[in-house]
Amino acid sequence: MHAITIPEPGGPEALVWAEVPDPVPGEGEVLVEVVASAVNRADLLQRQGFYDPPPGSSPYPGLECSGRITALGPGVSGWSVGDEVCALLVGGGYAQKVVVPVGQLLPVPEGIDLATAAALPEVACTVWSNIFMIAHLRPGETVLLHGGASGIGTMAIQLAKAVGARVVVTAGSPAKLARCAELGADVLIDYREQDFVEELHKATDGAGADVILDIVGAKYLERNVKALAVSGRLVIIGLQGGVKGELNLAALLAKRAAVMATTLRSRPPQEKAAIVAAVREHVWPLIGAGTVRPVVDRTVPMPEAAEAHRVLESGDHVGKVLLLAPRG
Amino acid sequence: MHAITIPEPGGPEALVWAEVPDPVPGEGEVLVEVVASAVNRADLLQRQGFYDPPPGSSPYPGLECSGRITALGPGVSGWSVGDEVCALLVGGGYAQKVVVPVGQLLPVPEGIDLATAAALPEVACTVWSNIFMIAHLRPGETVLLHGGASGIGTMAIQLAKAVGARVVVTAGSPAKLARCAELGADVLIDYREQDFVEELHKATDGAGADVILDIVGAKYLERNVKALAVSGRLVIIGLQGGVKGELNLAALLAKRAAVMATTLRSRPPQEKAAIVAAVREHVWPLIGAGTVRPVVDRTVPMPEAAEAHRVLESGDHVGKVLLLAPRG
Repeated sequence: MHAITIPEPGGPEALVWAEVPDPVPGEGEVLVEVVASAVNRADLLQRQGFYDPPPGSSPYPGLECSGRITALGPGVSGWSVGDEVCALLVGGGYAQKVVVPVGQLLPVPEGIDLATAAALPEVACTVWSNIFMIAHLRPGETVLLHGGASGIGTMAIQLAKAVGARVVVTAGSPAKLARCAELGADVLIDYREQDFVEELHKATDGAGADVILDIVGAKYLERNVKALAVSGRLVIIGLQGGVKGELNLAALLAKRAAVMATTLRSRPPQEKAAIVAAVREHVWPLIGAGTVRPVVDRTVPMPEAAEAHRVLESGDHVGKVLLLAPRG
Repeated sequence: MHAITIPEPGGPEALVWAEVPDPVPGEGEVLVEVVASAVNRADLLQRQGFYDPPPGSSPYPGLECSGRITALGPGVSGWSVGDEVCALLVGGGYAQKVVVPVGQLLPVPEGIDLATAAALPEVACTVWSNIFMIAHLRPGETVLLHGGASGIGTMAIQLAKAVGARVVVTAGSPAKLARCAELGADVLIDYREQDFVEELHKATDGAGADVILDIVGAKYLERNVKALAVSGRLVIIGLQGGVKGELNLAALLAKRAAVMATTLRSRPPQEKAAIVAAVREHVWPLIGAGTVRPVVDRTVPMPEAAEAHRVLESGDHVGKVLLLAPRG
């Protein structure tokens, strides 16, 4: 098969479409012929050499895919050759074939075409695990989503609205905020023009956000703590603004608040499987009903993954960038 | 009645036993004739003027008491005049009488004398709410308790052991550590002589602590994050070592860990009632069975509360210091 390889870490041009050995499914795994994958910010770090795949996993980038099952490893039940699926991967999605532990497989939701389904696993699992399983967002609560127009943001807006939360988003342009509003966001903050703590407090009569989903890290830590409500939960899933920040514990204590930081990729398979099962139970019916929709910015042929990475780095996209795999 | 008043904030001598008006129970409250109260570190801060009582609450210190119900406010059911009780208070325990919302009342556990019961409400509610309701310590997990010989520490050791956790404690002397060992602590760390991160890692084959209960705050923040295991939860309930510390978000993210900070006193009555109910359900049977025992360092007459504060400030005590109220 062919896959995107990274002979030397570097810029987008470091991504090289090359012939590589086919993967072989092990115990409890299936082989999937990939129809599409999607780009995640972690792929950019991996390309630059800053985020090596966990030991034993595929060396190729790609944390999600859609496609068809073409072979079953030993001990697999409940799935058949020919099934159309999408999957959460620990790597290897930028390829014509990938092996997937069965706990990370999902059926293609009703009404979603097979390629578009590749836009769903990472954002659905990231948003559900962080906002609902970790931060326990409840109906009537307020959630602040940084980067509302990102892949994660566009899914988070829809899921938070679907459970009856009030949604405040930040984004870097009026056009992006308009897209967030279309998806249901209640309060729109242009972080280039406005102070998000001030705007959030205005919008909540000073109460703040019960849950914050953050991708910035250190640069926003102090302001995020200020933005939290009493009993608020700050969940950090990205460190685009640095790794070390000053934490005011007195402010945190006065609010009885929590700061959590997580990643999905590093979780052991049983935790990934629990998240995937929860997503299938809670998110998939909402997608099947059309309440929650994948948001795809554009589709790029997989051999031109460098172009897709440039799009993510420019920050001009809204939602997911898909990679379409050439037939093997 | 008489109560300990604080005419001017200051040292222990600021505590003045004086005649004051009797409190009157309101809707959903009872009047308790106090037999004993107990000293908490928050009382020392209140005495110094750093921790004012919440608006509308008693101006006298004292976050817990035991005694007898002598009058019922409107709308009280399930409790009778003459009942022997102990109670979690928002203040006012250093007095001959105090009003208590019924949600904060507890029966005196079987086998515990009425005065000694005053040693239980704060430590039981603090430990249960933080280690179990917030940090969800599970059987087989490792918990690190800073200040193992304190009132909170002595209760936390016993409760964590009772649920089947492994208990690591820090304390400032071999004598205190010996007392912690008697209560069931598995690993003893003298923080004056040893590095707690190093010792903890030695004792857990490098895995670290699943839960840390901390009273130090900023001074320990970096080391506590280093001491956390994957999926670890750091719960900060005191800031004896400062309020602002550097948080390494990359370390937190790599561990998928959480930093929480809480106080019990500032919680609204319904949250206190939920904690008290959980303590009655989960902790009281363990005390009744003798599995968990109150640890009392000494008993001081309430008018000499200044002496009790000096004991806490010296740091030489193990467990709780009680204040015995003179008959009214």
